[in-house]
Amino acid sequence: MKSISLLGATGSIGTQALDIIRNNHDKFSLVAISAGKNINLVRKIIKEFNPQLVSVQEKSDMDVLKAEFPGIDFCSGTSGLLEVAVYEKADILLNAVMGSIGLAPTLAAIKEKKTIAIANKETLVTAGHIVMNLARECKVPILPVDSEHSAIFQCIQGEKLQDVERLIITASGGSFRDLNREQLASVTVEQALSHPNWTMGSKITIDSATMMNKGLEVIEAHWLFDLPYEKIDVLLHRESIIHSMVEYVDSSVIAQLGTPDMRVPIQYALTYPERLPLQSSSRLNLAEVGKLHFEEMDFNRYRCLQFAYDAGKAGGTLPTVLNAANEVAVNAFLEGRISFLAIEDMIEQALGRHNNIDNPDLSTIQDVDVETRNFIHSLCK
Amino acid sequence: MKSISLLGATGSIGTQALDIIRNNHDKFSLVAISAGKNINLVRKIIKEFNPQLVSVQEKSDMDVLKAEFPGIDFCSGTSGLLEVAVYEKADILLNAVMGSIGLAPTLAAIKEKKTIAIANKETLVTAGHIVMNLARECKVPILPVDSEHSAIFQCIQGEKLQDVERLIITASGGSFRDLNREQLASVTVEQALSHPNWTMGSKITIDSATMMNKGLEVIEAHWLFDLPYEKIDVLLHRESIIHSMVEYVDSSVIAQLGTPDMRVPIQYALTYPERLPLQSSSRLNLAEVGKLHFEEMDFNRYRCLQFAYDAGKAGGTLPTVLNAANEVAVNAFLEGRISFLAIEDMIEQALGRHNNIDNPDLSTIQDVDVETRNFIHSLCK
Repeated sequence: MKSISLLGATGSIGTQALDIIRNNHDKFSLVAISAGKNINLVRKIIKEFNPQLVSVQEKSDMDVLKAEFPGIDFCSGTSGLLEVAVYEKADILLNAVMGSIGLAPTLAAIKEKKTIAIANKETLVTAGHIVMNLARECKVPILPVDSEHSAIFQCIQGEKLQDVERLIITASGGSFRDLNREQLASVTVEQALSHPNWTMGSKITIDSATMMNKGLEVIEAHWLFDLPYEKIDVLLHRESIIHSMVEYVDSSVIAQLGTPDMRVPIQYALTYPERLPLQSSSRLNLAEVGKLHFEEMDFNRYRCLQFAYDAGKAGGTLPTVLNAANEVAVNAFLEGRISFLAIEDMIEQALGRHNNIDNPDLSTIQDVDVETRNFIHSLCK
Repeated sequence: MKSISLLGATGSIGTQALDIIRNNHDKFSLVAISAGKNINLVRKIIKEFNPQLVSVQEKSDMDVLKAEFPGIDFCSGTSGLLEVAVYEKADILLNAVMGSIGLAPTLAAIKEKKTIAIANKETLVTAGHIVMNLARECKVPILPVDSEHSAIFQCIQGEKLQDVERLIITASGGSFRDLNREQLASVTVEQALSHPNWTMGSKITIDSATMMNKGLEVIEAHWLFDLPYEKIDVLLHRESIIHSMVEYVDSSVIAQLGTPDMRVPIQYALTYPERLPLQSSSRLNLAEVGKLHFEEMDFNRYRCLQFAYDAGKAGGTLPTVLNAANEVAVNAFLEGRISFLAIEDMIEQALGRHNNIDNPDLSTIQDVDVETRNFIHSLCK
């Protein structure tokens, strides 16, 4: 029986993780959760899974829930996230919160020797050097939850990292893959949110359309698999059937495939090194799919991906700037305050004006994060 | 340094194995070889690799070579194959002879605790039950050399066999994949020998066109990976880029891909569990390939595949009948004595008249093999 702390229980990854725990209640127990403001869903989760510790974003919500569920411990805010992350009865922390608030809980859980299943991109993008060093020191496994990184992780099982020639991360191209840059100028939020293959949260769907999502994944892959950027390629693959690939020194390529179902990588992270039958997942039928398409990545079409490679290679605080600028700009786009193409223009400006700081510590990362957000906010006014 | 005995040194697999040994002379030493009648190539191999034991098919050829190379031990015929297979200085036997003469040397080498790299289909097709039981008993690894089985073997590294939901063996469809059964009636040997993807020996190229090659591979996979036939599927995939796949219980599919280059699986068998850079192998460029196609297998179009599944499931001596009948019929087709479609008709007849014998021993297998050959010969007259 594995005990799980789940950060971000009411989000897209969180609810799919609950589905897996629900279907394997003899294998997993949910001991602690955090959520934001979706208190009705928190109530349902408490009633079904009976976690012993629950954190919500607002103190006022916490007080309401405390009165309703007297047998359960509650906490709130960023300190609540930390409490859930290090909850002593948990073996695994599944970190599925969005944004840079996911970083501190990850580090705290590593120190407490929790196995980390990581769905929070910012943890590795902004502080990969700190997280991976600490994980090595504490001998804690960092298990990827993203479909691409899970694919790579599955493809390197039983292999040696030194035999890896390159990683090939696939990209669907997102909602606007059939539009040229001129056409991108006038796209709407609604159009951006209809991803051709995956049903995901709105921020990551926009990140797919700008290809920033893939850029962040490249940086994450660099840290997770300890490989230089020169060995990480991105390939356009419309169908999102091949989730990613690993090429070895003997030119053999191992790929992981499947229908687009995030429960597969989520479950793999939770069951690793075992596999469990995944109920109600639709099996891949390649004869029915018929064709898989592949195209070279166009870095001029998808400028955010180039920004990400450049920021990743430069290292220091530039990935933090990349991520923070993107987060605020995407939010402004989702709120209808800026155009789609303004997202990349603003990121470019933020990166251009930043004086990079090598090997930053956590507080430097947080300062740069706040400063970048303020800068993009000022642009969005 | 691994010492290699190579059966079938002058054949298609053999010469490619020599290429790998040549490029990695610090890793491999060729200590013993067998060859057929291509004595000029044997001379070259002796001069380049300096093996200590050489077997050829004919005694007269042996006598000629003995006089030329007094420092080397020679042998000939089927007993020569056995000597090479159990040569004491060898760690690995790479069995790349064609036909059922490959069986006895494999068994002899297993008893001598040699690691077996198996490219001889007949060994597993006709005597899989004997070979795999003996290998388990002697704790000897049987490493596949066929591209499909090597692909599966690479895809199960770090995984548990009990987590395998099914194997998906890919098939290019062979030289006549775009012809219907009516058009097959009048095809020529020359047409049959031009395989769209792979350059291989002539027998295996015909087996590709009839799909018997895939049928034999299904039976081999059954024995190599200890899985029931219900868990082994065949998928048409024109490009032969995905060499095979493994689907797991969680619906995740792991695939092995590459350009069609037999040196990759040959080398993997020799270097396993390591990988080595493969010189001059062309890297897979999926963006250049552009599209991969998949189609359901048509068992009415490819009747030999159905025969193979049926013979495999029935077990006993039926796979021996399948294989022997096919070998003689293909040879008759290659010699222009029968038509392409007569191959499958003759196999069907041989299977239909055979009284199956359960759990046959080696001599029963050999008797059935000879009897079946005689029967097909009689049909070809």
